[in-house]
Order: sequence, then structure tokens, then C-alpha cells
Amino acid sequence: MPVIRERGPQALAVLHEKDTQQPLRSHSSFIICSVHSLTRMKKLVLDVDTGVDDAQAIMIALTAPKVEILGITCCHGNTPLDNVLKNTLRVLKVCNRLDIPVYKGFSKPLLASKQHASDYHGKDGLGEVPDPDAPGVELLQKEMAAQAMIKIAKANPGEVILVATGPLTNLAVAVQLDPSLPKKLKSLYIMGGNTESRGNTTMCGEFNFVADPEAAYIVLDRYTCPTYIAAWEFSCRSSLPWSFCDEWLSLKTEKAAFIRKISNLSMNKARSADYQKEIIAGKGFNPCDVFALAAAVDDGFITESEKVAVTVELDGKHTRGMMVLDYMEHLKKDHKAVIMKTVDLEKLKKMLFKAVK
Amino acid sequence: MPVIRERGPQALAVLHEKDTQQPLRSHSSFIICSVHSLTRMKKLVLDVDTGVDDAQAIMIALTAPKVEILGITCCHGNTPLDNVLKNTLRVLKVCNRLDIPVYKGFSKPLLASKQHASDYHGKDGLGEVPDPDAPGVELLQKEMAAQAMIKIAKANPGEVILVATGPLTNLAVAVQLDPSLPKKLKSLYIMGGNTESRGNTTMCGEFNFVADPEAAYIVLDRYTCPTYIAAWEFSCRSSLPWSFCDEWLSLKTEKAAFIRKISNLSMNKARSADYQKEIIAGKGFNPCDVFALAAAVDDGFITESEKVAVTVELDGKHTRGMMVLDYMEHLKKDHKAVIMKTVDLEKLKKMLFKAVK
Amino acid sequence: MPVIRERGPQALAVLHEKDTQQPLRSHSSFIICSVHSLTRMKKLVLDVDTGVDDAQAIMIALTAPKVEILGITCCHGNTPLDNVLKNTLRVLKVCNRLDIPVYKGFSKPLLASKQHASDYHGKDGLGEVPDPDAPGVELLQKEMAAQAMIKIAKANPGEVILVATGPLTNLAVAVQLDPSLPKKLKSLYIMGGNTESRGNTTMCGEFNFVADPEAAYIVLDRYTCPTYIAAWEFSCRSSLPWSFCDEWLSLKTEKAAFIRKISNLSMNKARSADYQKEIIAGKGFNPCDVFALAAAVDDGFITESEKVAVTVELDGKHTRGMMVLDYMEHLKKDHKAVIMKTVDLEKLKKMLFKAVK
Amino acid sequence: MPVIRERGPQALAVLHEKDTQQPLRSHSSFIICSVHSLTRMKKLVLDVDTGVDDAQAIMIALTAPKVEILGITCCHGNTPLDNVLKNTLRVLKVCNRLDIPVYKGFSKPLLASKQHASDYHGKDGLGEVPDPDAPGVELLQKEMAAQAMIKIAKANPGEVILVATGPLTNLAVAVQLDPSLPKKLKSLYIMGGNTESRGNTTMCGEFNFVADPEAAYIVLDRYTCPTYIAAWEFSCRSSLPWSFCDEWLSLKTEKAAFIRKISNLSMNKARSADYQKEIIAGKGFNPCDVFALAAAVDDGFITESEKVAVTVELDGKHTRGMMVLDYMEHLKKDHKAVIMKTVDLEKLKKMLFKAVK
Repeated sequence: MPVIRERGPQALAVLHEKDTQQPLRSHSSFIICSVHSLTRMKKLVLDVDTGVDDAQAIMIALTAPKVEILGITCCHGNTPLDNVLKNTLRVLKVCNRLDIPVYKGFSKPLLASKQHASDYHGKDGLGEVPDPDAPGVELLQKEMAAQAMIKIAKANPGEVILVATGPLTNLAVAVQLDPSLPKKLKSLYIMGGNTESRGNTTMCGEFNFVADPEAAYIVLDRYTCPTYIAAWEFSCRSSLPWSFCDEWLSLKTEKAAFIRKISNLSMNKARSADYQKEIIAGKGFNPCDVFALAAAVDDGFITESEKVAVTVELDGKHTRGMMVLDYMEHLKKDHKAVIMKTVDLEKLKKMLFKAVK
Repeated sequence: MPVIRERGPQALAVLHEKDTQQPLRSHSSFIICSVHSLTRMKKLVLDVDTGVDDAQAIMIALTAPKVEILGITCCHGNTPLDNVLKNTLRVLKVCNRLDIPVYKGFSKPLLASKQHASDYHGKDGLGEVPDPDAPGVELLQKEMAAQAMIKIAKANPGEVILVATGPLTNLAVAVQLDPSLPKKLKSLYIMGGNTESRGNTTMCGEFNFVADPEAAYIVLDRYTCPTYIAAWEFSCRSSLPWSFCDEWLSLKTEKAAFIRKISNLSMNKARSADYQKEIIAGKGFNPCDVFALAAAVDDGFITESEKVAVTVELDGKHTRGMMVLDYMEHLKKDHKAVIMKTVDLEKLKKMLFKAVK
Repeated sequence: MPVIRERGPQALAVLHEKDTQQPLRSHSSFIICSVHSLTRMKKLVLDVDTGVDDAQAIMIALTAPKVEILGITCCHGNTPLDNVLKNTLRVLKVCNRLDIPVYKGFSKPLLASKQHASDYHGKDGLGEVPDPDAPGVELLQKEMAAQAMIKIAKANPGEVILVATGPLTNLAVAVQLDPSLPKKLKSLYIMGGNTESRGNTTMCGEFNFVADPEAAYIVLDRYTCPTYIAAWEFSCRSSLPWSFCDEWLSLKTEKAAFIRKISNLSMNKARSADYQKEIIAGKGFNPCDVFALAAAVDDGFITESEKVAVTVELDGKHTRGMMVLDYMEHLKKDHKAVIMKTVDLEKLKKMLFKAVK
Repeated sequence: MPVIRERGPQALAVLHEKDTQQPLRSHSSFIICSVHSLTRMKKLVLDVDTGVDDAQAIMIALTAPKVEILGITCCHGNTPLDNVLKNTLRVLKVCNRLDIPVYKGFSKPLLASKQHASDYHGKDGLGEVPDPDAPGVELLQKEMAAQAMIKIAKANPGEVILVATGPLTNLAVAVQLDPSLPKKLKSLYIMGGNTESRGNTTMCGEFNFVADPEAAYIVLDRYTCPTYIAAWEFSCRSSLPWSFCDEWLSLKTEKAAFIRKISNLSMNKARSADYQKEIIAGKGFNPCDVFALAAAVDDGFITESEKVAVTVELDGKHTRGMMVLDYMEHLKKDHKAVIMKTVDLEKLKKMLFKAVK
């Protein structure tokens, strides 16, 4: 844990970070408080459909400075829910952090047919390299994901940063159960949607949104907290070179070995000519979910963005599940999302390295 | 509570009623058991958007023989949720049954825009005749409607008859929270949908379904328990003569006075030429929600029905929210709903009279 | 052929009165004319997708009193256009009326995918009983169907009764080419659409409308002439008993033999349990297209009808192509179609007998 | 008019090669021909909805080397059809080319509601600077646009380059009337559609496609000739600097004065902050329709493009009329359109200057 560098004026600089909504109230007890209370810890709840890139995202979160993970909620998505639960526990075990509470979420979208991305992430969602000693689901919390989100947000008003890297079913039901949830959140980071009608699942639709279009619609409609979106096209344009990837995964650590193992299948897939065709601008390694997480843990990660009202097309033969950007302001929506345009890729590389050290 | 008349062979006749799924296991303790265990009590949960016809339905349920109301869950619909809560409590107060637990449900559809039927039911949803001594919302249960449904069904496996007379939002979220809920229910009775594309809200859509089409879709898709539907066209064809209505409401009881008072506005509306135009076959008093309730409390009420798979059109410029009957079996759905065709109107009249005595 | 009817402007003045529903029976100044020439000749253009029921309709038209067929335009539908052309010529040959001009229309719907009803009408659309001596397509007119409709209507302003018994592609393009066409027609009779969401092709859609929903939409939108619709549900309810059918087809005439031969396959199909299931009310022989034609040639055929604005649902997963009736007057359409409710079935039987004599 | 080019089968073989992108410059056996007749003349048919940018496009076509305009067909669009007809004639008059045949096309989309872009192009579609001496509509051809297209293509098989700069209604009906039309064309250039869901009329839809989505769908589906598309986003990215515009319009010629006059209103609009917001990449003068025309008259104009199958979304609350690019090859379409990516802007400037000299 960082001890010194947050002290003094630098620390204050950190405290006055962009998204701070509540100014620091009391300074008097400054000297005696622990480092933990000195600089504001980011309190994260991760909503995942673990998957290879979710695994990478979780590992970055676990190694990011001044970040506390209050819980991980699981959702159907890249792989069926049961796999997501197991995969999430496996990642935490490798990182020796099984103390983090993991919650079971929904196994089905609100009404769309279920679909998974098994061809990419493998049948088990984690590269088809089973762990005979994987932790058992008895480690899961009894409480359900949506209710846990509500409870955690209530217990940490204005502090919780929700990072959603799967279909948005859990978030959609949570806001239905507690319409005041968004107001209690600090912010929401989403990996999903598309900005230029370039789909990766349907012709115009990105996987997470297409996997539950109604949930995506509800979330973009009702989560009026500050919302940051890492869309598919952005992630394609922000790909890392394969050479970086080779270097990264050649680290001689247990964590690197784990990532290497689970990533093998999907990286081969991703490097294939067929898949690269789908990548719009720039070829390379697209860590996808990681972008949302990186933005959530480092306020300086996003270097360029735009604010625009967004929604999701629910009809449409080819466009169902497509995110729609309202540049023309036809929707008359007050709430605008922050659409990520460019990010600091050097920071990303450092995070990825730190994650496996 | 009924004491004697259910004893003897008649009682057995009752026990062998049509829908009994579990045969009576032990007869040895017959003599000593309480009346309650002697004949099967129907255990109802009512999901309402109280409204005038919901009020009538509740009052029938309260006076039906061998019927126990385990709870009333409230949903947005005829009037905003806050009114629904107040109206439900007002009805229970008039009937001196404030002991029945009332639960707060959702104030919004899953994603459709909210809409209410204020022009018909009045701004307060109950004929605009405020009660200064109406019971306060402090009487509401702390638990939310969807969770309460799940808990009650779990506590009474195979016994709960769910009667839904409003938009189906509560039921949709409940089955998302607990996919096994339908299996735990005895049956589901719905007032809603249409069978012949004759709408009462949009050109082809009935109010309860149009008010939350996604919820209706989810319920018809996932509630695989025996499901009975009183659709709009059926209710129109089963109208009662206004003369009956006059007689009914002229009873000199407190309850009749209450119904008379709250029904005045909507009955004038219903008797107007403009409204009668919308009624398809047969003019008269259409008690709507009451049909679903009457079928739930009396297994002999439905005299003709058909079983067919059903779903809800979610797209469609004119047909969004329309119930679709799959006579051609294109959907390949195993689960068929029972569509009510004709009912015993004499029984209905008796129930209505009994309700206000 | 009528000779007298062109006599004198006075006669024309009477005969040309718009929308005359009761034919002029007797007129003192017309003592010298034959009854046939006395009353106004009905001038028909038939737009067909010959099929078995189109064949029957054409044969009724050819034998109806005071009816002149100005042309037959052919459209894709029951069977591919080439078959429709051949089948139409075959019917005219059997009736010895190859003098009637036959026009080639569109082989494809405006934008829907092509579909045919081969399983019902047979691969050739006419019961799979080929005629080695069938007339050749060299007998077809050079002019295309849509343009021919426009020309004929222009040459006979206010007199042409258009009877459409197939998909409405020809009519849709014709009104695009000449928006004034509907004003020049006397009336339009359509077999197609549905009134109670009971489909015969999709769950909610009737074949002719589903085969080209955009064309149906355009026709119901732009043909503001008096429009009579024989919808699918009506035709089902107006079925004739199979016993009548047996008697009808046992007539010892060449024409009856022809009908018997071409109807064999579809009648066996129609009599099957599977097909009868789809028939809503009343089982039996449903001559479908014949209803529209019968209404066109005999103003007394329709015994009950209702006027209502109609349109076609173009979106909709299950309802695309479904006719929508605007009882609630949401569309604010001035033009109402006449929806056929009941017809004089005794008249129908007589027409069918006369057609094969 | 070219005389020699039909000489000898060899010459024809060379001249008729499909998709020749570099015009034949010199040929030894052609010493006696004039340069004009030496190289292949491009035979254009323009389908316009004259508007300001259509006017500019026509003027470029009239001054482009080796280009013959066989006809101009008019369509509803920027302004009602009657204005389009008048505006087209006005442009030809200014250029002293009233000899070019102008055809009246459709005044309405196939089934969408009519809409015009009056706020941009002015009420008369041409900047609201009426010409008291405008040529009369008696100069129009008697034949309709769709039929004229068919006739011209038939008379010039494999030679006609169709340039469509308005809604595609005329083209859609033409291919319905003659499905073989596309095979007879040399190529088709379209201004319309969008590639990145960035609309200019609806949130995701470009004006020409949204003005008749069904027509756009039909054209992209059935015109299997080489098809080049200048989409909205491309045109935005290819804007010219306002400084160029000022220089261009300051030329002291009658034609420049005409363009200046008719462009005044729309350029002020375009230069406004409000409008520039909609322009995606690069601010400036977007001559829109001109891009399609420039590509048609100069094979070297397009410097970068991509081939991809395309279609049009017809459903969709926000996406109706949006062009969909099938990078994932889900449509299994053989025919790919050429989507313009970058063009030679210096060439464009020269064309614009030449057009007004």
C-alpha cells in the first residue's frame, strides 16, 4: 500500500479529483488517521460475466492503488452463470483474495433469449483449462446480486463505483427494486454498446448489450449517476500490439501463468485473420472489459471523451441492442453519458503488468 | 369461518375438485382435524392496481367461501402506485379486513412509459370520492411485493393461487428473482390481453398488457403453472345488463354504498355512447378484473375455454402489447394457457351480491 | 354482349350514378330493351394469383349476369407468376373465353421475401393436374398489369370494379404510378387480411397480406374508393358444408370436371383434421377468393357489414402483415373500408352451380 | 456525338469492358476521331430532388468532360416534386441546356410519410430566390421518370451511369417494373445512407434514406450493378473549407452568381454553430450530392473505398432508414457496394470552379 506519497499537498491534489462530489469535511484529525482514511479509497462493486477479459479486469482492480472491492456480482453472459460463478472464484483464489464477497446474479436476460460467447471464451468461459482444485460455490454469499448492490450502495452512500463488464441484467433489476439506487452511486462504468453501428455479435450490436437489450435500455435510462461507457468501437481502436502481449504474458509469476493459460484459446482466436477482420481500426489485443475497469480505478485514464445522451434500440431487424447516440438531442434527455474516445495506453500497460506481478 | 357445512360427503366432493393436483394423503385423522384442514382452503395472493373493478374483485375474494387471502400486492396501473396502495387499504377498511397484509410493488413498468387510466377510474383511481378517514400507508408491510410473492409461495408450496388484475410488472420481476416461483404456485389467473386484436387502449392492445408489454411477455413465457386468462374481448362479451347493476347497487348496506360511490364516475363513463362503441359484443356492465377473481375462487365458474399457447407482441406500431394466440403452434410451446370463453353469469351475479352484503 | 346500354345520354346518366347498390330493375322508358341490357353492366378487372379458389372466382365472374370482364391482371402469390399466367389462361380456355385480355403483373412482392402456398394449391398452383394442351403465354397482352389497370380505369371512369384476390403488389405499384387511379374506380373488392388476429400463414397474418405487407398497407392507405374486404376469419365463418361441395362437383359438365380435378388436392388438404383446426368457426369448404368476387358481382350478396378504417401492421415479430381495424379511430382516417360480416350463402351456392354449368 | 466508337468489334471490345476505371486515352486506330469521340463518353442519367446541392451536382455534370446527360429524372425530396421540377429546369436554363430531357417522377415515398428539408433548402428548395422568368413545366417530358429510366437503359445497354441524389423512390419502382434494369446499367452512384449511425434527420438516419426507407432497401437489394455510395458521414468528413467557398462563389460569372444566390440561405444555415455541431469530423462546406456526381464523372475521384454488403433497417424506433453495413457477412449477400472513404478534394475544387465558369 502506498504510504508516503499521498501525504502533504499531493495527497490533497488526489483528494480533489474530478469526480469528488463531497468535499472533505474535517481536516483536524488529519495527522492521526491511517493512510487508509487519508486518501479517499475508491470503493468498487464489479458486475461481471467472467470471461477472460473480466478475469483480467478483476486482477487489475485487485492490484490498483487505493481501491477496495466491496463485492463482485455475477451475471450470465460470456458463459452460463454457473461458470461465471466458478470462474470468478478461481480468479480470486489465484489472487489469494477469496475474502471478497461474490454474489450470484441472474442466469437469464430479462426477456431476450439467452446467448453466450463460448466460441471466443471457451465452453467454460475461461479458456477450457479446468482447475481440479477450484473453490466451491459454497463460498458464494447467500444474498442475491441485485439486492447486494442495493445494500452495499445504501451502506456507502455516494461512494460506490459500479463497474459493469457483462450484460446489464443485474443492474436493470436492481434499479427496478430500488429506483433510488443510481442516486446513491458515485458513478457507473460500463463496457458495452457501440457508437458507430459496428457490431461484434449482430451486424450492428455489441455482445453485452445484445445479450440483454432491455436491461441495457433500462440502465441507460435510469442510472442517472455519472456514467462512463467503453464501447466496442473504442475498444477496437485502442488495441494493444501483440508484441506487448507476448512480453506481458512471459512474466515468470503465478498470476501471469494463470492469465497465459486462460487466454490461450481466445488469443489464438483473436489473432486469426477472421477475427481481425471484425476489428475496425488497428489490429491487436483488445482487452475489452479492462478499459471500463481501468477508467474506474484511475481518473486520469480517459484522455478524451464526449458527453452525449444515449439509449438502446429495442426494435430493429438488424439494430436491436444497438446503442444510439443522441447528438441531435431528439430525446431531450438531461442525463448524458461520457463516451470514452481515447485513453492512456501506457497507463493500461502498467496496470496489466502490475496485475500479474 | 365456515364450520359445519363442509363436513360429510359434500366436503369430499369439494376436495376432489378439478384442479387438485395432490390427492388427499391421510384420512385417518379426519375427525379430529380442524375445519381448516378438512376442506381445502383456496389460498389467494391478489396482485392489483386498485381501480374500481379491482375493488370489486377484492370484495368478492373477501366474501368467497373457503378462500383465504394471504396477501395483496400492489402495482402501478389504473392509477399511480401511491393511489393503488391507499385504495387497497380503503377497500380492506370498508370490509373490516385490514388484517390482510398489503405489499408495495413497482411504481413503473419495466421499460415502457408509465400510463394510467385516470379518465376511466378517476384521478385517484377510485372514482374521486376521497375518504378523509382513509387508513394510512403505515399499515403497509415492509417487504416489497415481488419478494413477498416469492416468500408466500415458498411457505405454501403448490397452494398459492395468484390472481393478477393489473399490469404484470410485479410478477415479471418476481420470476426473474426466483425462476422457480411458477413451479411453486397452484395456478395463475390473469385479467389482461386480448384474443381478437380488439384493443381498449391502443388499437390492438388491452390496458394491463400495454401498460407493461415486457412484463406480460415474461409472465406468459415463464409462468408455466396452470394459467387462466380473462381477456378483454371475453369480458366485453360477458357484460352484465345495466338493470342488474342498478339492482345490485341499490342494496342498503355499507359496502353497497361504498361500491356505488366509487363506481359512479366510471359507470357513467361506461354507459356513455362513446364507450359502449368500444364494447364489442353486448352492451352493459363489464366488471373486467372480477372475471379473473371469480374464476379463481370458483372452479365451476368457467363454462367454456380453450387451451392455446400465448405470447405478447413486443414490436409493432399498432400491435405492441397485443396478446398473440398460437393456434398454428408456430411457437412450439409446451405450456398452453386456458383462455376463458364463457362463464356462469348467474354465479357472477351471486358473487357480486354476496360481496356487498 | 350488351348493345343498348350505350344508348342515349339520359340512360348513361342514370346508369353512371355512383355507388348504386340496387341495380335498376325496371324503367318505363326502356320497354324495348332486354333486361340484360337495361341495367348497368358491371365492368370488372380481376387481379388474381390463380390458384384453385381464384379459378372458381373467375368462373363465377364469367357466368354472372350483367358482368363484363375488361381484363385479368396476374400477380405472384399462391404460386409463382409463370404458373399464375398459365393457370389463368387454362381457366379461360375451359370456359371458352380466351378473348379476355390477360396481363402479366409482378413476380415479386415490393420488398418482402417471396412466398407461395404450394402445399395447399399444389406445385403448379392448380392441383397438379397438368393440361398438355394448355394455352401458351403468347396469348398474354404486351402491356404490364399495373399499366393496364391504369389504362382501363382511365377509359372507363367511375365504372371499373377491381376485384383483388391475390397479394396486392400490382395495385400498390399502379397507385404509385397514377395516384389518381382510385378516384377513377367504381369500387374495390379484396380478399385478404384478418379481423381478429387469426392468421393462416403466420400466427396473426393472412396469406395475401403477409405475402406483400407493404403493398397491402399502400392499398388500404391510398385506395380511397369504396372498398369491400372479405377477410380470412369471415371466410372461415362462411364455410359451406362438404355435402354441398360433393353435390356441386358431381355435376356432369366439362367445367365441373375441371373444378373437380384441380380442387382434388386442396380439398383433401382442407378436409384433413389438421387444416380444419385452423378454421375458426364452422368447418367445411371455404371458397375464400370467391367471396370477394361474389360480393362484386351481386350487390345483394353482403347481408351484414361494418365500416371501419383499416391499416396493416408492418412491424411486429408475430403481427407483420396483420390487418388492423381502427375501431377507436386513432388513425383519424376519413376513408373507411366495408368489412364483410355475413353473406347470402344460398346466393353463393347458386353462383357456384351456375359457374360450372 | 461519338461516331467512330462503334467501329469494329475490337474497338467495341475495349470500349465496352465492364468497370473500366481508366478511360482509354489514346488508340492508334483512332487518329481520325476527335478527342471527344475518341474516348468513351459517360452516359449519365441523374435522379435528383433539386435542392441546392443537386443544382451544384447538375452543373458539374454539365461541364464535366466526356459526359453526356441522357436525362434527368425528378423525385420528391428536398422539396415537393413540383418545386423539384421547376428547380431542375431553372438550373438547366442558367446553363443554357434546356435540351436535356427532364422527367417527372414520384411525388411521394412508397409508404413512408412525406417529408421535406425545407428548413435547409428553403421553402422552394432553392434558397427562396424566385426567378420570374423560370421555364414552365410544359418543357417536361410526357413520359414518367421510372419508365424513362427503363427505356434509356434499354436503349443504351451497359452504358448508363445512374446518379441518384434524392430519395430512391423512382429507382425502386423502376426495378419493380423491370427487374432486369440493374443488369442493363453500367453503374449506380448514390448520395445517401450512413455508415456509422450518425443521422442528419433522425438520430441514426440520413435524409435521402429516411425519406423513403423502403425504396432505399429495394435499391440496395435489387440493384446488383456496381454501386458506389457517398454516405452522410463520409460527406461530413470531406467538407471543404469555407474560405474555398468564398473564393469559389466570388467568381464574376452568371453561373457563379446563380449558385451564390441560391446557396445563400443554406450556407448561412450550414455555417451556424447549431448545424456545425451535427457535422462529425471537420467543419466546413459539405456539398453532399456533389460527391456522388463527382465520383460518377471521374473514375479517379475516389481515392479510398471499401466493398461491403449493405442493407437498410426498416424497423427500429430510432434506426428506421439507417443503412446497415454487413462486415460480419451475416446477410450472405454476393453483391457488395463500394463505400466511399476518401476522395480527391483538389479534383472536387476544380470541378466546382469549372461548373460555374
